[in-house]
Amino acid sequence: MGKLLIVGSVAFDDIETPFGKSDKILGGAGTFIGLAASQFKVESAVVSVVGEDFPQEYLDIFTAHNIDISGIEVVKGGKTFYWKGKYHNDLNSRDTLVTELNTMADFNPIVPDNFKNADVVMLGNLHPNIQLGVIAQMKERPKLIIADTMNFWMDNTWDELMEVIAKIDVLTINDEEARQMTSEYSLVKAAAKIQEMGPKYVVIKKGEHGALLFHKEHVFFAPALPLEEVFDPTGAGDTFAGGFAGYLAESKNISFESLKNAIIHGSNLASFSVERFGTERMLELEKHEVERRLMQFKELTQFNIELT
Amino acid sequence: MGKLLIVGSVAFDDIETPFGKSDKILGGAGTFIGLAASQFKVESAVVSVVGEDFPQEYLDIFTAHNIDISGIEVVKGGKTFYWKGKYHNDLNSRDTLVTELNTMADFNPIVPDNFKNADVVMLGNLHPNIQLGVIAQMKERPKLIIADTMNFWMDNTWDELMEVIAKIDVLTINDEEARQMTSEYSLVKAAAKIQEMGPKYVVIKKGEHGALLFHKEHVFFAPALPLEEVFDPTGAGDTFAGGFAGYLAESKNISFESLKNAIIHGSNLASFSVERFGTERMLELEKHEVERRLMQFKELTQFNIELT
Repeated sequence: MGKLLIVGSVAFDDIETPFGKSDKILGGAGTFIGLAASQFKVESAVVSVVGEDFPQEYLDIFTAHNIDISGIEVVKGGKTFYWKGKYHNDLNSRDTLVTELNTMADFNPIVPDNFKNADVVMLGNLHPNIQLGVIAQMKERPKLIIADTMNFWMDNTWDELMEVIAKIDVLTINDEEARQMTSEYSLVKAAAKIQEMGPKYVVIKKGEHGALLFHKEHVFFAPALPLEEVFDPTGAGDTFAGGFAGYLAESKNISFESLKNAIIHGSNLASFSVERFGTERMLELEKHEVERRLMQFKELTQFNIELT
Repeated sequence: MGKLLIVGSVAFDDIETPFGKSDKILGGAGTFIGLAASQFKVESAVVSVVGEDFPQEYLDIFTAHNIDISGIEVVKGGKTFYWKGKYHNDLNSRDTLVTELNTMADFNPIVPDNFKNADVVMLGNLHPNIQLGVIAQMKERPKLIIADTMNFWMDNTWDELMEVIAKIDVLTINDEEARQMTSEYSLVKAAAKIQEMGPKYVVIKKGEHGALLFHKEHVFFAPALPLEEVFDPTGAGDTFAGGFAGYLAESKNISFESLKNAIIHGSNLASFSVERFGTERMLELEKHEVERRLMQFKELTQFNIELT
């Protein structure tokens, strides 16, 4: 079975949308990535840190989804990373009301021994030095290293971020950040410049407008599934990344064709994630629902024009 | 051969983009629709009005593209509709600097006799009463009536617009306008409401984010081709509509599958239109370029996930 190592926050989220308030619930990039990846036949582990206030029942959720938690450090007397945010009416933008890094401020990731030979490494959006620290612990070069990042690290830790980018195979980044990183408005040009910095593949996330996969002169596009209702976008990008990484860890096939399938699987899972608060929808998701919606993705995008 | 009747402005455009100024050039929805549709094996006619200042060489362009111009009235002593606009740096928004309706203000469309039995009617974005006037002149119900509209007509001529919408088969509209028309933020819900108003099919245009086709519970999505450079977006939406209508007039096959192909053809042609000022690119477009880019659309969107 393919091995997937995930590094990312495990946290409390406190979310307000036009539809209601979640109160303090399970969140964090590592959580969403792990739950999405658990839809695939993979051995996965999440490396993260939480405080003593993190409930056992939340840890049990990971275990129940076959996610190894030996790399989730529980800091005695520490408090878990806490984020509180409020979405605007169109759900496309949000205000962060509270960010308490707590134990995450001193996060020193320790990769469990039996995951130092993981096939795929998914580095969630974290300080580039943490991402570098994880890469350095791998016993052999993974088949694929994927990293997510954001504008905060570009603004504050550019050099370290460039070190990460030189070492990875896939960068996932949103459209505005790709533009900021390269000073190119055209995403085609931005993706080409990012590939020059290191990664062979660039995934540009456009939220409700889908995601683009770039590799050399090839481009593939996966739309977001048009939904009647988006309830809570929190974690959609990480769910996307988890589906992407999970599929590749299962298939162990690293090719453009395979990465195309991976971003469809990622988009598919993200379409569920936004239907409820936080991880709610992912926790009850059943295989037949996933397959049924994959069929909708096919209907949404496949056509048959004969070329002469 | 399928017959396509196009009703839309034939105009002078004066465009400024970050890349330069066009001066006064050939423009107008009817022009872009006609040129795009001329890529297909159809008999087409444009119904419009221009002034005496409209150059014969521009009329010759229509004729050279096998577009019947007997429905383009040339008003003696009149001036041609003139629009001047300036795009912002990201090309996603623009300011209208000058709009001189001129002869367009009293446009009274006369459908040429030999197009009163057209298979497909494409009603460009015009006063709903003009659109209704054209429908009323048809000898028999066309196989397909497509209409484009915009927020201006919603704000000022709602009742007349609703009359149009009750009589057509396909409404093309942009995302913000679909939301305004239905008071629904979700495009899925908006498209469902519009279908209740009359049209069996709804095409929601999202500019650089592609276009959605809705029909009952079916959705299809065509992305815009990611381009290295967008030079001038003027006419992209009309070129899309022209490719859509032209394909359907050629195929005479009105089904969801056929409309899927039509929006791919429309998106494909629109991707050329934006590469130069105004109609420049469409005027030199060759069949092999069109086919080659259709292949890129396939690569951009087609994947092969086996479902169990």
